[in-house]
Amino acid sequence: MTLEIGVLGYRFMGKAHANAMARLPMFFPDAPDIERSVLVGRDEDALTEAADRLGFDSIATDWESVVDDVDVFYNLGPNHVHPEPSIAALEAGTPVFCEKPLAPTLADAERMAEAARDAGESVPAGCAFNYRFVPAIRYARGLLADGEIGEIRQVRGRYLQDWLVDPDAPWSWRLDADLAGAGALGDLGAHTVDLLRYLVADGGLAGSIERVSGHCRTFLEERPVDGDDGVDETRAVTVDDAYTAQLEFENGTMGTLEASRVAPGHKNDHTIEIHGTEGSLRFSLERLNELEVLQEGDRGYETILVTDPEDPYVDHWWPPGHVLGWEHTFVHENSEFLTAVANGESFAPSFADGLAAQRVLDAVETSDDRGEWISLE
Amino acid sequence: MTLEIGVLGYRFMGKAHANAMARLPMFFPDAPDIERSVLVGRDEDALTEAADRLGFDSIATDWESVVDDVDVFYNLGPNHVHPEPSIAALEAGTPVFCEKPLAPTLADAERMAEAARDAGESVPAGCAFNYRFVPAIRYARGLLADGEIGEIRQVRGRYLQDWLVDPDAPWSWRLDADLAGAGALGDLGAHTVDLLRYLVADGGLAGSIERVSGHCRTFLEERPVDGDDGVDETRAVTVDDAYTAQLEFENGTMGTLEASRVAPGHKNDHTIEIHGTEGSLRFSLERLNELEVLQEGDRGYETILVTDPEDPYVDHWWPPGHVLGWEHTFVHENSEFLTAVANGESFAPSFADGLAAQRVLDAVETSDDRGEWISLE
Amino acid sequence: MTLEIGVLGYRFMGKAHANAMARLPMFFPDAPDIERSVLVGRDEDALTEAADRLGFDSIATDWESVVDDVDVFYNLGPNHVHPEPSIAALEAGTPVFCEKPLAPTLADAERMAEAARDAGESVPAGCAFNYRFVPAIRYARGLLADGEIGEIRQVRGRYLQDWLVDPDAPWSWRLDADLAGAGALGDLGAHTVDLLRYLVADGGLAGSIERVSGHCRTFLEERPVDGDDGVDETRAVTVDDAYTAQLEFENGTMGTLEASRVAPGHKNDHTIEIHGTEGSLRFSLERLNELEVLQEGDRGYETILVTDPEDPYVDHWWPPGHVLGWEHTFVHENSEFLTAVANGESFAPSFADGLAAQRVLDAVETSDDRGEWISLE
Amino acid sequence: MTLEIGVLGYRFMGKAHANAMARLPMFFPDAPDIERSVLVGRDEDALTEAADRLGFDSIATDWESVVDDVDVFYNLGPNHVHPEPSIAALEAGTPVFCEKPLAPTLADAERMAEAARDAGESVPAGCAFNYRFVPAIRYARGLLADGEIGEIRQVRGRYLQDWLVDPDAPWSWRLDADLAGAGALGDLGAHTVDLLRYLVADGGLAGSIERVSGHCRTFLEERPVDGDDGVDETRAVTVDDAYTAQLEFENGTMGTLEASRVAPGHKNDHTIEIHGTEGSLRFSLERLNELEVLQEGDRGYETILVTDPEDPYVDHWWPPGHVLGWEHTFVHENSEFLTAVANGESFAPSFADGLAAQRVLDAVETSDDRGEWISLE
Repeated sequence: MTLEIGVLGYRFMGKAHANAMARLPMFFPDAPDIERSVLVGRDEDALTEAADRLGFDSIATDWESVVDDVDVFYNLGPNHVHPEPSIAALEAGTPVFCEKPLAPTLADAERMAEAARDAGESVPAGCAFNYRFVPAIRYARGLLADGEIGEIRQVRGRYLQDWLVDPDAPWSWRLDADLAGAGALGDLGAHTVDLLRYLVADGGLAGSIERVSGHCRTFLEERPVDGDDGVDETRAVTVDDAYTAQLEFENGTMGTLEASRVAPGHKNDHTIEIHGTEGSLRFSLERLNELEVLQEGDRGYETILVTDPEDPYVDHWWPPGHVLGWEHTFVHENSEFLTAVANGESFAPSFADGLAAQRVLDAVETSDDRGEWISLE
Repeated sequence: MTLEIGVLGYRFMGKAHANAMARLPMFFPDAPDIERSVLVGRDEDALTEAADRLGFDSIATDWESVVDDVDVFYNLGPNHVHPEPSIAALEAGTPVFCEKPLAPTLADAERMAEAARDAGESVPAGCAFNYRFVPAIRYARGLLADGEIGEIRQVRGRYLQDWLVDPDAPWSWRLDADLAGAGALGDLGAHTVDLLRYLVADGGLAGSIERVSGHCRTFLEERPVDGDDGVDETRAVTVDDAYTAQLEFENGTMGTLEASRVAPGHKNDHTIEIHGTEGSLRFSLERLNELEVLQEGDRGYETILVTDPEDPYVDHWWPPGHVLGWEHTFVHENSEFLTAVANGESFAPSFADGLAAQRVLDAVETSDDRGEWISLE
Repeated sequence: MTLEIGVLGYRFMGKAHANAMARLPMFFPDAPDIERSVLVGRDEDALTEAADRLGFDSIATDWESVVDDVDVFYNLGPNHVHPEPSIAALEAGTPVFCEKPLAPTLADAERMAEAARDAGESVPAGCAFNYRFVPAIRYARGLLADGEIGEIRQVRGRYLQDWLVDPDAPWSWRLDADLAGAGALGDLGAHTVDLLRYLVADGGLAGSIERVSGHCRTFLEERPVDGDDGVDETRAVTVDDAYTAQLEFENGTMGTLEASRVAPGHKNDHTIEIHGTEGSLRFSLERLNELEVLQEGDRGYETILVTDPEDPYVDHWWPPGHVLGWEHTFVHENSEFLTAVANGESFAPSFADGLAAQRVLDAVETSDDRGEWISLE
Repeated sequence: MTLEIGVLGYRFMGKAHANAMARLPMFFPDAPDIERSVLVGRDEDALTEAADRLGFDSIATDWESVVDDVDVFYNLGPNHVHPEPSIAALEAGTPVFCEKPLAPTLADAERMAEAARDAGESVPAGCAFNYRFVPAIRYARGLLADGEIGEIRQVRGRYLQDWLVDPDAPWSWRLDADLAGAGALGDLGAHTVDLLRYLVADGGLAGSIERVSGHCRTFLEERPVDGDDGVDETRAVTVDDAYTAQLEFENGTMGTLEASRVAPGHKNDHTIEIHGTEGSLRFSLERLNELEVLQEGDRGYETILVTDPEDPYVDHWWPPGHVLGWEHTFVHENSEFLTAVANGESFAPSFADGLAAQRVLDAVETSDDRGEWISLE
């Protein structure tokens, strides 16, 4: 059986997933056979060019016709395009893989998660938190689950970028509340919340996030529009440039979160740090092959290169020390998701996970509005 | 003229300051001549031994008799001993140097700052925030003041230790709310708040801290008492093991703060990070000779060894690359403070600075109680 | 026009190049169209499986029939298989891409380079020094060529691995002098010598390597053979486990080289360091997205993440901070080589570069035998 | 009993040792009582000022009168002043502590070591290799001696500075072969050779250094003289700016050595790396509180902050994480040496150790002259 894939979106994420799909046969031969069947978008010329370059058989400008024709539907469009096509696909019984954050608003995310529930377990609905698929993160998950770090007490997550430091950086949909939902909070914070949930939110570790205090800020209220007509124009920035938050988990674990798009010198610096009763962990996405671990018997953090054959996913690739890149996380993620689809099994991170992250982000915004801690029930 | 010094306290801080005083003539020959005149404490035997080892001429068990006899009074006792002797000395017109945090409670700190104001500018009252005297921190201050980092937008301070990870670590006065005021928050947070105030709280940079949201937690509610009688006993821990906070400065700068005494693998890891419109800075106390700087023309952080003769205080010591240690900050601090005393000039960090830090810490606690942001007026 | 490619070898290097070829259309659309036409080996079953997995149209067990049928011949076999097929292909006017080191012996390398010369400039003969194609290395090359580091004075190269620390690590062709030529010296040292040549051996920089003093050592003289029959057997290790060398370049630049397969904790740690009159550079393969640079105006090394769109090759991939991996060097290398083939242009690193590296390695061995410096000329 | 100390030399080393002596009573109360008795030099005015600042009772311009009057003689003058006063003191039965390198020439070093032997074990003759007294180095020594790193196979030592990168850096005695003996080789290489001998040259580890191949180079042949008369003058540089070497130890361990005074960005960067059959070690003087260790059970190097009370010398100082500086090595060294003097016991590093290092350095120079390996018998 060959799974026919329909993909909405052909820019950054479209390229990242098309590449991942193209690499499966050579590196994950046990993944199901797939066909990049149809690429969905609005601009036919751009779409034709992209379909050709990314290896799709056909194009479509209207997703309604696609979502129940294909075996799997990937929703890689801007955030405001996540809900309707995803829900339509699920209603048609088509498995969906949707980019993060799940939706621009919590209400949308709830509708999407409900559609996933209604579709049933055999119709996987995945949310593309790709950093769960970094080998070092999976390895960390294993250490945590095995109790190597002990009972969790403190976590720290931050995601720093600097592409908006330049006041002339142009306006885009990512800076608009209606199209994107939130700014650094949604785009980057969603990843951080999901990673912390993945790593410690087990009942046996820290449990779920119970309370949040948040703070959001927009440093530059408007940005120039890249116009073809040479007219100088600006458009309002209606999302946050940066946020901070404090967390409390079920078992009393304390946490701090932060993201910024205006942190000079940080390109894609997603850092997770965890302290437990028996040890500590540190991870940084800019050195994604490494994990720093302090565990029993250690006097200092070990800097571990997570590239041994026993490490998660590594045996599919290269010998020790031949480091992987960012894009490999998409290959792992696609392999797992498509296998779930082929087997009619559930997949994590799911829409429920996407919703759980969204609840936290929403609580951060509410907390920022009200100036008080918000409980997540 | 030789300044006669009276010092209350002869343990960790007593040793650190006695050492600093002893080293002034060789390294800071322009500092005033001093005599380690009298060491004040309660246990005569221990005091006699300490006075001998630390080079004091005499001992006293009652501070009342000392504070107006000496030319300068150092208050290095536990936090709850800070207020009365310091106030008495200032009332007697004796300059005071007091360890941090200034007092166990905000009310005490206010009384102390008021006594300092009343004593007048020519009677310096210093608060021992020694990390202002790290060459790398002074160098950072210079870069910030010169605008090299631009307008400040985000700050981050955290201070991690691990001496309370062990559940058998014994109870001490530092774990008692009445004696210490607060835990990690007071002991470590005071340093972090002061450093951030020192570095960015200028009007031209971020301005003062205006709002705070805080979170405190005690992970272990009781600790064993080190008893001579072999009886197993525990005493309650009534201060925090860790805290987190979010800040907002006058100009809108966002900040996060954190400290812990239960962060495995971190011994004395005080880290400050600052992002502005033109660059970024990072400092860690465990590598206190280094400053990481990103400024105009840099594509990445420069790791600067701040040991050149032009660097603050360094010409008093050794050639480039011959690194200084933690204790050198005390030598710098004592040199500056004693020079202020000799000249009848004000000194910073002052009791007013101590009070300002205390207000922030107090607001963190209040915020933790109330679950909402607290304004600092 | 579509280039038909024949590839000898289907293990580690076969997979790395097949993957690189497969990725060209999506990421380097200007590279020539190619067809993975025929995969050459000895074991038909393994070959069939590999051809299927790696995307080859057909298989062949005899390279003679292949080398003039195809448009390009890739020689990715063990070192002792490099000379004859490569020479035959070149004699047939077929461009060749050969893995490094160019040959097991200097005499073989000379024959191969001669064949390349005879074939003429329009028949590119490339030697697969893939680390020239790391973006950070290309960026370093640019800085050096622009004089940012000044006149070169000292270089340092080392390549540390640890896969032979375990005394039970099995014997392989890489440990046999007849099959591999040399050990760490040939396998790892070839890369280091080539990188240093690439970076500084310009006339305007350090010029060519003029003298060498070398030292080789085998720590374990025999290794177990992985036998199916359960018989315990060992085979002799006839190559070095580690080597060191000192270099002198034309302009007087001093250098040290080193490689090891028995350095615990180092998986694939290829480090290059360069000091000039105006600055310094450092690179490590385990953090291949980073370059450390000290240049005019810097007080310390800048840690640069070489992932900006202006950086070499990066615009073909992902946004800043989305790091590349080891395998991307092969994509860049294949793109450049195949473009040279399509255009009938010369390609570097060439067989002449492979020979130049081999001369240095051979001089290291001769120096080790004789206990004296060896001149290269 | 109070030991009366005579010290020749009052510049950098004079200050470093005077400071160390002054700090003993407070931190090493078990060290013998001493009196900084007489400071020896040539320029009376400078000497008087220095004696006052450094705490000496008197001055002398002629060492002959001093060496048998005092209880201990410190020879901290330029290298060419090491031999005669040290020998005279030893002949008078006065213990001697001499700065490194032991002497400008091997012949001088041999005479000095002979004088030390003749004086007998109860008259300690110490050579001031202070880096043996870094806590992290002592800790490393312990790990090596306990077999934690296994059988030693490879060592690496380098010492990089950059104070001669500037072509206008003035001439000094350190650049003259007659006064200094050698350049980077003697000044820096002596430290590296001694540290490697200290760490691994035990019979049970690598044994002694048996063969050497060396390379020396002077990049700038003359330097300006700092003249009072405003006349532009230069003087010849007759020592090396940089050297490299390869080593072989008794058990076959391979090594590389290197030092430079022209490595931009490196202030005092003394790095030691060791690989054994069971693990690896790394140390850098610029982060002298840290040791990186890979041992059984580790997947990566642990970065250990060697500041725990159990660590060598640390209990004399401050709590964990309160880092020491460069000068503390002198306090440890003086404490050990003066205790040996008081007890009439031998001290290491001794003149014999100084001579052993000198033999290696001399062999490096001979090897450089002859272009061949030199055996050390």
